[in-house]
Amino acid sequence: MKITAVGGYKAVGRNMTGITLGEETVAIDNGIRLDTMQMYDEDPNILKKRNVDELVRMSIIPDAKILKNVVAQVISHGHLDHIGALGITEPEVPIITTPYAAEIGKKEYKKGNFYSLDYNEEFQISTDMSVELIEVTHSIPNASIVVLHTPEGDIVYASDFRFDNDSTIAKPDYKQLKKIGQGNVRALIAESTRVTQIGKTPSEAIVRNKLKDIIGFIEDGLIIATTFATHIERVQAIVDEVEKSGRIPLIMGRSLHTQTELAKRFDLLDLPSNAIVLKTPKAIKKALGNIKKRDDYFLLVTGHQGEPQSVLSKLINNKFNFKLKKGDSVIFCANVIPTPINRASRHIVETRLKSIGVRIFEDVHVSGHASKEDHRQLIKLVKPEHIIPCHGGIEMRSGYVDLGIEEGYELNKNMHLLTNGLSVTV
Amino acid sequence: MKITAVGGYKAVGRNMTGITLGEETVAIDNGIRLDTMQMYDEDPNILKKRNVDELVRMSIIPDAKILKNVVAQVISHGHLDHIGALGITEPEVPIITTPYAAEIGKKEYKKGNFYSLDYNEEFQISTDMSVELIEVTHSIPNASIVVLHTPEGDIVYASDFRFDNDSTIAKPDYKQLKKIGQGNVRALIAESTRVTQIGKTPSEAIVRNKLKDIIGFIEDGLIIATTFATHIERVQAIVDEVEKSGRIPLIMGRSLHTQTELAKRFDLLDLPSNAIVLKTPKAIKKALGNIKKRDDYFLLVTGHQGEPQSVLSKLINNKFNFKLKKGDSVIFCANVIPTPINRASRHIVETRLKSIGVRIFEDVHVSGHASKEDHRQLIKLVKPEHIIPCHGGIEMRSGYVDLGIEEGYELNKNMHLLTNGLSVTV
Amino acid sequence: MKITAVGGYKAVGRNMTGITLGEETVAIDNGIRLDTMQMYDEDPNILKKRNVDELVRMSIIPDAKILKNVVAQVISHGHLDHIGALGITEPEVPIITTPYAAEIGKKEYKKGNFYSLDYNEEFQISTDMSVELIEVTHSIPNASIVVLHTPEGDIVYASDFRFDNDSTIAKPDYKQLKKIGQGNVRALIAESTRVTQIGKTPSEAIVRNKLKDIIGFIEDGLIIATTFATHIERVQAIVDEVEKSGRIPLIMGRSLHTQTELAKRFDLLDLPSNAIVLKTPKAIKKALGNIKKRDDYFLLVTGHQGEPQSVLSKLINNKFNFKLKKGDSVIFCANVIPTPINRASRHIVETRLKSIGVRIFEDVHVSGHASKEDHRQLIKLVKPEHIIPCHGGIEMRSGYVDLGIEEGYELNKNMHLLTNGLSVTV
Amino acid sequence: MKITAVGGYKAVGRNMTGITLGEETVAIDNGIRLDTMQMYDEDPNILKKRNVDELVRMSIIPDAKILKNVVAQVISHGHLDHIGALGITEPEVPIITTPYAAEIGKKEYKKGNFYSLDYNEEFQISTDMSVELIEVTHSIPNASIVVLHTPEGDIVYASDFRFDNDSTIAKPDYKQLKKIGQGNVRALIAESTRVTQIGKTPSEAIVRNKLKDIIGFIEDGLIIATTFATHIERVQAIVDEVEKSGRIPLIMGRSLHTQTELAKRFDLLDLPSNAIVLKTPKAIKKALGNIKKRDDYFLLVTGHQGEPQSVLSKLINNKFNFKLKKGDSVIFCANVIPTPINRASRHIVETRLKSIGVRIFEDVHVSGHASKEDHRQLIKLVKPEHIIPCHGGIEMRSGYVDLGIEEGYELNKNMHLLTNGLSVTV
Repeated sequence: MKITAVGGYKAVGRNMTGITLGEETVAIDNGIRLDTMQMYDEDPNILKKRNVDELVRMSIIPDAKILKNVVAQVISHGHLDHIGALGITEPEVPIITTPYAAEIGKKEYKKGNFYSLDYNEEFQISTDMSVELIEVTHSIPNASIVVLHTPEGDIVYASDFRFDNDSTIAKPDYKQLKKIGQGNVRALIAESTRVTQIGKTPSEAIVRNKLKDIIGFIEDGLIIATTFATHIERVQAIVDEVEKSGRIPLIMGRSLHTQTELAKRFDLLDLPSNAIVLKTPKAIKKALGNIKKRDDYFLLVTGHQGEPQSVLSKLINNKFNFKLKKGDSVIFCANVIPTPINRASRHIVETRLKSIGVRIFEDVHVSGHASKEDHRQLIKLVKPEHIIPCHGGIEMRSGYVDLGIEEGYELNKNMHLLTNGLSVTV
Repeated sequence: MKITAVGGYKAVGRNMTGITLGEETVAIDNGIRLDTMQMYDEDPNILKKRNVDELVRMSIIPDAKILKNVVAQVISHGHLDHIGALGITEPEVPIITTPYAAEIGKKEYKKGNFYSLDYNEEFQISTDMSVELIEVTHSIPNASIVVLHTPEGDIVYASDFRFDNDSTIAKPDYKQLKKIGQGNVRALIAESTRVTQIGKTPSEAIVRNKLKDIIGFIEDGLIIATTFATHIERVQAIVDEVEKSGRIPLIMGRSLHTQTELAKRFDLLDLPSNAIVLKTPKAIKKALGNIKKRDDYFLLVTGHQGEPQSVLSKLINNKFNFKLKKGDSVIFCANVIPTPINRASRHIVETRLKSIGVRIFEDVHVSGHASKEDHRQLIKLVKPEHIIPCHGGIEMRSGYVDLGIEEGYELNKNMHLLTNGLSVTV
Repeated sequence: MKITAVGGYKAVGRNMTGITLGEETVAIDNGIRLDTMQMYDEDPNILKKRNVDELVRMSIIPDAKILKNVVAQVISHGHLDHIGALGITEPEVPIITTPYAAEIGKKEYKKGNFYSLDYNEEFQISTDMSVELIEVTHSIPNASIVVLHTPEGDIVYASDFRFDNDSTIAKPDYKQLKKIGQGNVRALIAESTRVTQIGKTPSEAIVRNKLKDIIGFIEDGLIIATTFATHIERVQAIVDEVEKSGRIPLIMGRSLHTQTELAKRFDLLDLPSNAIVLKTPKAIKKALGNIKKRDDYFLLVTGHQGEPQSVLSKLINNKFNFKLKKGDSVIFCANVIPTPINRASRHIVETRLKSIGVRIFEDVHVSGHASKEDHRQLIKLVKPEHIIPCHGGIEMRSGYVDLGIEEGYELNKNMHLLTNGLSVTV
Repeated sequence: MKITAVGGYKAVGRNMTGITLGEETVAIDNGIRLDTMQMYDEDPNILKKRNVDELVRMSIIPDAKILKNVVAQVISHGHLDHIGALGITEPEVPIITTPYAAEIGKKEYKKGNFYSLDYNEEFQISTDMSVELIEVTHSIPNASIVVLHTPEGDIVYASDFRFDNDSTIAKPDYKQLKKIGQGNVRALIAESTRVTQIGKTPSEAIVRNKLKDIIGFIEDGLIIATTFATHIERVQAIVDEVEKSGRIPLIMGRSLHTQTELAKRFDLLDLPSNAIVLKTPKAIKKALGNIKKRDDYFLLVTGHQGEPQSVLSKLINNKFNFKLKKGDSVIFCANVIPTPINRASRHIVETRLKSIGVRIFEDVHVSGHASKEDHRQLIKLVKPEHIIPCHGGIEMRSGYVDLGIEEGYELNKNMHLLTNGLSVTV
């Protein structure tokens, strides 16, 4: 079997890996790279306007053309760095993913030929290959570890994942992973974003505890929180604490509207009866205008990275005819994704908040990615013959190599550092 | 009233502040500075061998002589940077502190004239001054915020503290602080070690959750944890999780022996019936020799900063005739106290552990010190006329000044940056 | 005498200090704060559109109104954080500065009443006060240390400065400083931006050596350098090396045009006869269009901080119909001024350059600001009674306090940490 | 040809690479790893006491046994991480190196069979292989780039090196490198320690300029400098400036004595006639006792990393019955080699110096290692078919991969990331 690094093997983002058995190739993931997009400082419609070759050259989408005779496109989960290029590369083969990610995918690529696969179901791709999705925790509902079954053994693709035994919406299916490991796993392709982080990624329970602590601690003023719109488990945790506090939750911003609507349809989110979700600037302005006593309200808004067009930035710039005041509080339920652009945007937002006198609470966050000991656990469970670290610059994937060496693997023998465009036969 | 910065106003450690009313002075705290001691690379008995003047010159103890006519010595809590110089400076006046700290103090200064004061009790120091201790959370039992009552108003001394509403052993007494704030607080003297940390210090509940998560996650091998010997709430959390795991807890090391004995006497620590506390190297060696199946044991040991003489370092250096093995785990329930010496010592320990193949879990820790929003809360509660940041280099105390400015105070008017040796009249 | 901190005593930028003797006040410096401006993401004309109160509130200009009965405005040198608010605050008193800075000032504030003062000349402000400017090195020509002579002693204002004995355009006048120090210096007001930097700020000779080394090292391709437009000594060093290399220097960008014109008028810059200075995008485009063999050319352009509107950014974005190519080189003769916004902008520029294959040379720079030992030297020379650190956040000015303590000063006694809006009487 | 990574391919230190052609293997370099030695906190005689297998297991020396049928040992230069294990591994084959390194090697390994090879001479190892050493700059005299000539093409081994056109003792031989490049270079094995550093490593001329600047700047008090004992070009620069200052240079410490003696024998060092080199503590004590006027003396001492047994540390600890005083100056002509242990040791030294009132000058240093653009130049000169980065952890060698990709190489095709113990056939 040949494994081809298409995207995500030089830097984080625009993930795609090809698995070739005989004449047939399966592509896994098909994402965009957001930080490069920001550098070209383009409007959000950049993806529609440019052509595929240009976007490849700009390192925004993977160079899908290097894969020949693709028979299926598998998608691990619904984050844009894994699914966001579907509407540009427009694969005409079946697109197999979890039901939740399929809904997200259909928005990006209307004409896509989507197959929703439940966990542990098997989808026959061709005579020789079938695919199975295994439940795992990440920071979006319905994420999966992909298993490609072939007569020459299985390929396990784990990008992105973490193990959280206290997750309220996604329990890692250790049993099925162990079962796969008792068979013949030819190769494990695993993400590397946080493999150099010592220990185990903490549980989302940590976030719930911090939210309870902080919301209980703040006595007055308006409270505003911001988090990833796709992180439904966290949105639930936030509104649960808001409900206990007796405040009225106003959820504001286009992406929060889209994602909470989707989650509600899948029964993954249970908003308090008094919660109001506001999509447009007009609706937001009106709702803010109706606030009488700011101690009674709680805003959940977009803008955790300081994005200039987010609701939080607009609030600061007084675009809704509603002023933040000294004594209000902002809770960042998301860490800065460490690119210089995010750092600058978030710095501006925090500096402006401080200048108004708004109290800031940070680090109400745990990562969605596996740390070193989670990764070690996965290796122990699936017992792969070969390991190919993916999803990261060489410094991150080299970190995985250190772990692999500890577990008895050898670089260039049964552990492989690829780079976008290269293949290895396992 | 005159407030004199004696120690802790140039760098963290060797805390002492003087409060002078008329002719009488009260000294608060009387500690040593550990990192300077390490730099002189002396044996642990340095404090006995050198004389007071030399130790002052070496920045190890406060220059207590600059306070004239001291009528009482108050101690806020039992950490050595607040109490450890008692045996050297040997104050002959009454030493007033909480019952727990008094026991620690008596070990340092046998001839000391200690008065144990319960929370909210009042001790009359002189005709005009009385002292009261208020319950607060820190990382040692029975810590206090000191209130000095005088006809000219109260002095509130809050060093060290944090607010943890989920603490199992020390609930902050907001009610009493608020009551004090409704009177006339002339000055707040507050620690500054973490005031630049945005938000609120997380609860010890975070540590409990992480311990549960990690101990549940480790399937086999010996587990070793290490934490501050005086942090009894954390020791309790560790042994509680050990008990659930079915492992036998062996507690090893001189300081862990001393502190757990003390805590048991005060009914603050409840060890599982199968727990064994081992003091001497000989006893430790024997207990380790009896280990048959390492999956059945859990060691709680000294050595969280990588101290060369600690049990953890000796285990690594095979001083107990017992070898750590690949697959064993070490949980650091303490962050590195950020001095270059600690960083180097801990680096050696972690590198050696990795070279053996031991799994490492870190950051199972929350700080014992207030963050910016905890500090803001204290200001709101006690409403001081003046603020004097203490316990920190000027960069830390300057961070407090930023907060003070946000709360309407002005530097050199009603907020004062002192330096060791200087006074301010409030 | 009363010294009032107006601006620059909370963060770097918008410098102004007031000196009051009896009923009369002299204002020194009158600058803007550039990083706050960037945060409001406004067009370059923000300063014209907003009114004074708003700009004060936004922390962009100093709150000059707090000074009463101002009789003169002194300006130390021509950088915008010292002179840039003149056109907004519009002082109607005499504005006294060096001839070079006066020319810059007149551009900002056409109706200003400027007096050009040569070094060591004395200008009588009022019956009791006169001002003298002393030569010193900085990163703009004709910078000065300001000395205010009064019957009650002298005030020395040293912001900004460094000591460079190898400077080709500004020799520090140690002799005059020493002479001042033999008199009665009541107070030294000194900048603090790099006082925590150990040692002495290196000489501009370092930059000259690095330029020679690098330009001699690059064999082919177009070479582009970028530096501060006002840093004429460095511009001279660059074109001198270009001349030796035989390449044709094209100097591009509005601010480089303005500043090199000014420097030529003052005989401070001697451009090679084949150098061409291009101001407008149109002229730049045309000149680039005429390049036949890129090995023959050297561009000196604006854009050292990655500013989106600079010539360098426009070159990268192909706005001049001229493409950078693999093998071209960019030399950054300026470090990133460490704000998150600059870091992000420069990161974008460097990432884009790397993606094209352009070679990057960095750190061809020495600071224009005094380090700790330069500062110590100044104290030794002028022997002030009091010290007031200026130009920096409290963490920088606290760094100066550490130096002051080493030199025998005591905080709050003869060394003072002010904050914008506060005064001290010396 | 087979290239085997023996040591230095997991972390910096204990370098050894094997080149196998047919049945014969040449070993290049044979060094120790100093930072691991420090971690075992052993006395300096550790290397004598332990056996080879133990030292391999402790990651202190390379596992030379994995190379079979070694016919020659080549040494690139005389630093201990390249030559220091000779006395332990005791190769019985010819040891070929530059004359200067041979002298150093003979001290480590008395019975060694050393062949001193002049630059550009050729030494016939066997029928098929010969070796040539090419002059290059590093931070020790007589360093070389090793070229192994074989019928199947050349192997170029460049570890460690930099290009300094202003070096007073080692001019890079670009001409010979270019000539080699015009032949058939099968592989380049290149060090990676500073390849991620943007630009070109600055010239030693920078250090000379800073020395002149600082020594000219210091008016009184004793001046002490410290640098690498083997860095003879820098020692020369220091004593040259001392001579100009009129001070008497006292050179102190065992390693400075050894290395300056050696350099004098090779006519590489010209000490001023009044310079005195002192080897033993007794001699140092006596010389210090004779100092009448400290303004007249300049000490060059060991201790740049804060080593506890160095002359500088002993001076601070008053071991020579000679006290450092306020107003004395220490110039660090060496940066901290970034291991936690060095950081801690140097921190102690600097803190102690500050507490005495000694002025500190730092960063009088340029690296001895190539930066990214020097490396690119070497690739352009020798035009290798394959590239194997050596001398560094995977994060450093991955940095080299980034450069290789820019220059058109592909990982796993003609660029190889090895790890200690692995081979690649080129």
